[in-house]
Amino acid sequence: MIIDRLIDAIDAKQNPTALGLDMRPDYLPESVPQDETADAILAFNIALMDAVEDIVPAIKVQAAYYEMLGVAGMKAFRETLVEGEKRGFIVIADAKRNDIGPTAEAYARAYFGGAFPAHFLTVNAYLGSDGVAPFLQYAPDNGIFALVKTSNPSSGELQDLRFPDGRALYEAMGDCVSAWGAPYIGKHGYSAVGAVVGATYPGQGAALRKRLPHTFFLVPGYGAQGADGKALSGMLDENGRGILVNASRSLMLAYRMKEYAGLSFAEATRREALAMKEDLAL
Amino acid sequence: MIIDRLIDAIDAKQNPTALGLDMRPDYLPESVPQDETADAILAFNIALMDAVEDIVPAIKVQAAYYEMLGVAGMKAFRETLVEGEKRGFIVIADAKRNDIGPTAEAYARAYFGGAFPAHFLTVNAYLGSDGVAPFLQYAPDNGIFALVKTSNPSSGELQDLRFPDGRALYEAMGDCVSAWGAPYIGKHGYSAVGAVVGATYPGQGAALRKRLPHTFFLVPGYGAQGADGKALSGMLDENGRGILVNASRSLMLAYRMKEYAGLSFAEATRREALAMKEDLAL
Repeated sequence: MIIDRLIDAIDAKQNPTALGLDMRPDYLPESVPQDETADAILAFNIALMDAVEDIVPAIKVQAAYYEMLGVAGMKAFRETLVEGEKRGFIVIADAKRNDIGPTAEAYARAYFGGAFPAHFLTVNAYLGSDGVAPFLQYAPDNGIFALVKTSNPSSGELQDLRFPDGRALYEAMGDCVSAWGAPYIGKHGYSAVGAVVGATYPGQGAALRKRLPHTFFLVPGYGAQGADGKALSGMLDENGRGILVNASRSLMLAYRMKEYAGLSFAEATRREALAMKEDLAL
Repeated sequence: MIIDRLIDAIDAKQNPTALGLDMRPDYLPESVPQDETADAILAFNIALMDAVEDIVPAIKVQAAYYEMLGVAGMKAFRETLVEGEKRGFIVIADAKRNDIGPTAEAYARAYFGGAFPAHFLTVNAYLGSDGVAPFLQYAPDNGIFALVKTSNPSSGELQDLRFPDGRALYEAMGDCVSAWGAPYIGKHGYSAVGAVVGATYPGQGAALRKRLPHTFFLVPGYGAQGADGKALSGMLDENGRGILVNASRSLMLAYRMKEYAGLSFAEATRREALAMKEDLAL
């Protein structure tokens, strides 16, 4: 039950944070040797993971930034996932994969069968249930987070359109996600089929929490995208559970913040992770 | 203007077919040396491309099947794209990528900046315009096909839901795609921003043709998924243009068909491509 492992890890560390490793070459500090970009990124990722291993329960690794670097980047992507699991993190591959059934099966094998090993994969479910079913064959040992309400400014263009029954598209999507997840609910009451709900839309997030009591939320949009901890309190259940909050730029680039001047990049990220933990102690 | 190059190539070869290289290890014929799966797949892909180079204008390469094979698979994916372009094919990376703006920018660089070089990329636009804009920075030299009405059985679960203005979600998505593409319309009247419209829903496809006169359609679902040429006539414009029809399994696995027994796999695929061309001479 991977969702129970995630929630137990959050409980143990009293911290619902995912370290987002959405790593661009221009994020690298000068102190990391940069002969080979992909190797440098992997080294940076490992140093950041080592810096927060005891205080952060999960990592989210964004595939796009590694694809951008070609085959060497995909090797760094794989190694980052592998090293994350070795260190005991819950590992989320953020790749938003989607396709028709037989092809979704290939993606499911890619992420849950060992090629790019992850506990969770983000999925775009615009294709409906037969594009999601192949991922669920790996549940509840592996799980997905399906895009419901995304954090970007234009997410409402389609997602907020309303049907005659009063539901917005993101609510209809949320209802599908809830139904797909019903067979995979763990001891904490949450399913291995979760939802991506942006921190930047706290009102909609709070309404979704009420609507989807068994759906765990992966919450991007904290930090660099503008949301803070208070905005997220409505997404919690009565036990203070229900969300994993990702921060990428604010944690990776902590070494550039004035208040951490003079610290190593790893120590700066650790301090910022502790500050984020405090901000999220809701 | 990549869309003009695509349409000119279709016109020159009198054939609106894309060879789909959605290559699974179990598709490999025994005659291909199979010491290294990814190398064998690349060799098979190259042999198939060589077999139809003079009669087929485009290839569509499905990322999922290469991701499934890990880093070595991604190398074969890249090499397939490169070898396809060398042979003069219009190259479509079928990866259905999607994310928020800064991350979509990384995907755009991955596919249009050289790492995994393609002329077109398939895109899932559930996130709205700011997730699509980064790809359009490469238009009209590169183009996208956004998912509108997909070919799979469950595509209607979300895509066919209807809004109070009478539009189904796939029509609303189509209208967005049309608006995004308006600045990039070439000499044939079609935009570099195209749509994925499944062959398996010919009625909806025909209605979309009328609704979206400047949107070129990438049409999956022919052959193994069940559609034939007649079903597609409604998606054509008055000049017999407007679609590129992908076939993957029916072309890759032609060597297993009784009617081609005794032929090499390459010759079987060529015969099947010629039969498909005839079927599509609408």
